[in-house]
Amino acid sequence: MSSSPDIFHGWVGHDPKSAQGNMQWEAFTPKPFAETDVDIKITHCGICGTDIHTLREGWGATHYPTCVGHEIVGHVVRRGSSPAAQRFQIGDRVGVGAQAASCLKADCEECSTGMEQHCGKGFVGTYNGLYREHNYWSMGGYADYTRVAAHFAVKIPERVKSADAAPMMCGGITVYAPLKNNGAGPGKKVGIVGLGGLGHFGVLFAKALGCEKVVAISRRRNKAKDAETLGADDFIATNEDDKWEKKNSRSLDLIISTVSSPDMPLSGYLRLLRTNGTFIQVGAPEGDLPPIAAFALIAKGCKIGGSQIGSPKDIEEMLQFAATKGIKPWVHQRPMREANQGVVDFEEGKARYRYVLVNEEKEQSQL
Amino acid sequence: MSSSPDIFHGWVGHDPKSAQGNMQWEAFTPKPFAETDVDIKITHCGICGTDIHTLREGWGATHYPTCVGHEIVGHVVRRGSSPAAQRFQIGDRVGVGAQAASCLKADCEECSTGMEQHCGKGFVGTYNGLYREHNYWSMGGYADYTRVAAHFAVKIPERVKSADAAPMMCGGITVYAPLKNNGAGPGKKVGIVGLGGLGHFGVLFAKALGCEKVVAISRRRNKAKDAETLGADDFIATNEDDKWEKKNSRSLDLIISTVSSPDMPLSGYLRLLRTNGTFIQVGAPEGDLPPIAAFALIAKGCKIGGSQIGSPKDIEEMLQFAATKGIKPWVHQRPMREANQGVVDFEEGKARYRYVLVNEEKEQSQL
Repeated sequence: MSSSPDIFHGWVGHDPKSAQGNMQWEAFTPKPFAETDVDIKITHCGICGTDIHTLREGWGATHYPTCVGHEIVGHVVRRGSSPAAQRFQIGDRVGVGAQAASCLKADCEECSTGMEQHCGKGFVGTYNGLYREHNYWSMGGYADYTRVAAHFAVKIPERVKSADAAPMMCGGITVYAPLKNNGAGPGKKVGIVGLGGLGHFGVLFAKALGCEKVVAISRRRNKAKDAETLGADDFIATNEDDKWEKKNSRSLDLIISTVSSPDMPLSGYLRLLRTNGTFIQVGAPEGDLPPIAAFALIAKGCKIGGSQIGSPKDIEEMLQFAATKGIKPWVHQRPMREANQGVVDFEEGKARYRYVLVNEEKEQSQL
Repeated sequence: MSSSPDIFHGWVGHDPKSAQGNMQWEAFTPKPFAETDVDIKITHCGICGTDIHTLREGWGATHYPTCVGHEIVGHVVRRGSSPAAQRFQIGDRVGVGAQAASCLKADCEECSTGMEQHCGKGFVGTYNGLYREHNYWSMGGYADYTRVAAHFAVKIPERVKSADAAPMMCGGITVYAPLKNNGAGPGKKVGIVGLGGLGHFGVLFAKALGCEKVVAISRRRNKAKDAETLGADDFIATNEDDKWEKKNSRSLDLIISTVSSPDMPLSGYLRLLRTNGTFIQVGAPEGDLPPIAAFALIAKGCKIGGSQIGSPKDIEEMLQFAATKGIKPWVHQRPMREANQGVVDFEEGKARYRYVLVNEEKEQSQL
C-alpha cells in the first residue's frame, strides 16, 4: 500500500533571479491534507511560460519561496475519504494542470456550471496560489510529489503517454478549449499566432478537429517547415512577408493568439479575420494589449476575447480527443535534475516544442 | 401615377463648419437611375450622431458637398424594373437606413449570406458613399427625395408610425442587432452604456426582448428617471457612484456600449461582466479604444466586439418586433427647415432622445 511522505522536495525559487536558472532543490512542507485531496507522486512535469513569468515576477508579485510547474503527470499515492478523492484508486495515472482548487460551492455560478477555472471566490493556482484557510502558498510540479484537490486531478487515458499528456495539462488545454468553444471544425479557417509550445498544440488540435485550413502565423519563417510537418496548410511570417495583412485580409474565421509580446501587430491580425470573425488571446502580455481602433471591430462585426485554461471536464474531453485522434505533441524529455537549464533553454526559445521534466527513480535518488 | 423630379433638394454641407448649423438648402442631382433603384419621397429623417461626425470630418475625409441623414422614411414614387424594385408598389411606405447599396453578387461572402452591411466590395453609405461606376457621392435624407438600391428599402409595418420608424433605421437597428446576436432575452442581464438616441433604444429593446435585468449606465445620474420610465431596472452613474466597478462587479452577461468617447472607462465596464460575458461597442470613437489588459479578457473568458447597423432582413425583423411589442421611442419631431438648429441641439445633447425632421407639404413649399 502506497503512501506519501510528510515532506516533499522540489526545485525552489527564492527571488526573481531564479528564472535565470537559480532554483534550488529543497525540502518543503505541503499544505495540510484534506479529505478532498489526493497526493500524486510526480513522474513528469512540462515547462510552461507561466513558470518563468512567475519565477521572475513578470505578472505581479510572486510569493517566494515558490516551486513552479503545472503540467503534472504522476500516480495517486494517497487519497482522502471524499467522493471526489475516492474516484481514484491508489496507483491511478493522473494529470494536474494550472489549477489545484476552487470553491466548488453549489452557489458559485462558475463552479456550479462547469467553469471552475473562472471561480472568483476560491481559485488556487497549482503554484503561487493562496489557500486562505491555511495561509499556505501552493507549490507546483518541479518536485517529487504534489497535493491537490482531487476534483482537479484527471485520469490519463491509456493510449496517451505520460510525457505527451503532461504538456497538454496547461499548454494543450489553453488552446484546445478556445478552439472548441469558438467553433473550430469542418469548414472553418483557423490561424494560430505563435509557434511555441501552445502554438504547436494549436496547429495539431485545429487540424485534428477537421478545420478546412490551418494557418501558422509567426514573426519569422524559420519554423515554416515545422509548421507544415505539424499539419499547417499555410504560413505567414509577419516580420518577413511583404504586405502580409493585405494579402491575407479577410481569410480566417478564428485566430488563437498564443504570443505574449505587448508589441504584437494586433491590428494586422484583426485584418486577417473574415466578417464576424473571432480573435482569442491566450498568451498574456505583461501589460496592456496594443491599442485597437473601434472601427476595426465594428466594420467587420469581429470580436476579441480571452480564454483561460479549461475546466477538469474540458481537460478530460481533450485527453479523450487526443487518444482517439492519436495527437502526438513534440516533446523533449529532460531529467528533472536539469530543471534550471530547462528554464534557461525555454526562455531562449530552444524548445521544439515542449520540455518535459522526468522524475526517474534513479534521478530522484541522486537529487 | 407618381414620379420623381430630375433634381432633388436638401440641406447641403460644404465644409466642416456645416456641423455647427451651416448647412445650405440647395438643389443637387441624384445618381443616375438604375432599374434596381427606387426613388423615395421623404416624409421623415432622424438626426444621427454619424451625421455630425461626417459633417465635421470627425471620422476621416468627407466628400463635400454632402447631404447627410440616414434614418429615412417616405413613400416610393418611382421604381425600376428589377424584381427587387418591383417588390414595391408606388406609394408604399418604406424606410432606408445607413446603407444604400452593396455589391449583391452571388460570390460575395457577405451579400450572399445576409450580411450586406459588411460587404467589402460594394458597400455604399446612404450619404458620403461612393458609387464607383458613376464617380458619384451619395446624398442622404435631410432632403425632399432620395434614390437608393431597392434592396435596401424596407416596408414599414402599418402599426409603426413614420416618426417612430425613422430613428429605428439606424439608431434602432444598431442596438437591436447586437442584442439579438448576443443572446439578449429571458435570464440575461444586460447593460446599456450611454443614454442617448441609441442607448434609449437599447433599454427599450432589451426590455421588450424579455431580459431578466436591464441596467442603464451613464456618466451622470441626471437621466436616471428617464431610464426607469423607459424600463431600466437599475442605473449606474460612472462619474458619480462611488466604487461602481466593484459594487457591480460580475453582474452583467452582455453590455452594449453606445458611447463614442475615447476616454470611456472601458476597463471598468469589463469588470461588470460575468464569466464568458460579452461587451459590444457600437459607438465608434474618433480614434483608438482605451487600452485594456489582456488579463481582463482572459481571467473571465470575456469578449469585446463590434457591431455595425444590420442587414435589410435584420431591419425588417426589428420593425416587426417593434410592431408586435408596441415599442415606442421618444421622438421629438421638428420641421425639416429646422435641420441646422437640430444638429446644433443634438450636439449639445438636448435630444430626448431622437430628433426627427419632418417634411410637411407646406414646409417643403416654403423651403
